[in-house]
Amino acid sequence: MTESADIAVRKFQKELNAGTVALVLLAVLKRSGEPLYGYQIAKLLEAASAEGMAVKQGTLYPVLRSLEGQGLLASRVEPSVSGPPRKYYTITAEGEAVLTAWTDVWDRMRTFVDATLEGGRG
Amino acid sequence: MTESADIAVRKFQKELNAGTVALVLLAVLKRSGEPLYGYQIAKLLEAASAEGMAVKQGTLYPVLRSLEGQGLLASRVEPSVSGPPRKYYTITAEGEAVLTAWTDVWDRMRTFVDATLEGGRG
Repeated sequence: MTESADIAVRKFQKELNAGTVALVLLAVLKRSGEPLYGYQIAKLLEAASAEGMAVKQGTLYPVLRSLEGQGLLASRVEPSVSGPPRKYYTITAEGEAVLTAWTDVWDRMRTFVDATLEGGRG
Repeated sequence: MTESADIAVRKFQKELNAGTVALVLLAVLKRSGEPLYGYQIAKLLEAASAEGMAVKQGTLYPVLRSLEGQGLLASRVEPSVSGPPRKYYTITAEGEAVLTAWTDVWDRMRTFVDATLEGGRG
């Protein structure tokens, strides 16, 4: 693959990530049912992404802060016995409503993209 | 849904679109096997998006130009009997290579997102 094609692939991955990381974070926090701090979330995402889609921790924190700024997550700082205090996140009621709406958008987008890719595969 | 939740949903849709419109355009042009102009592409996308995911023509044209600028599409202007000249697009060899790579990224992303959404549904 040429260098410009390689750039196009990285640009695409970055654009897809922009939307999906926030979706995945809300989903993980909804599912856990208990407050989680950044490192725990990163580990849960890593477990779900065996095929090298790992979300880097450096990507995670700005998105967590942005979701909190939008009122979709709430946080509480607690001391840790083994290091600096930890910021625990929970999903808010508004976050749950948005997760439902995002999941619906995602499902329709996935159906649409897969429909256009069919026939172009193989 | 509150106004801020509504903003969050529109932001998410916009971010998802940013990556997927380019993917879908390459897929449609690969599949057609013949040059297509903007309006034809818009109609094909409309047909694939019965559930209201319609890609607006205003979104389409900048992405077509961007893909051409990246060497993934080529174009040729031809006169039309019924109006202004039409710009016909074809996918380039580089575009086909990038489509294959993007499809792979998409498939992995879809698997990852669906895995994290499982259990959070319903």
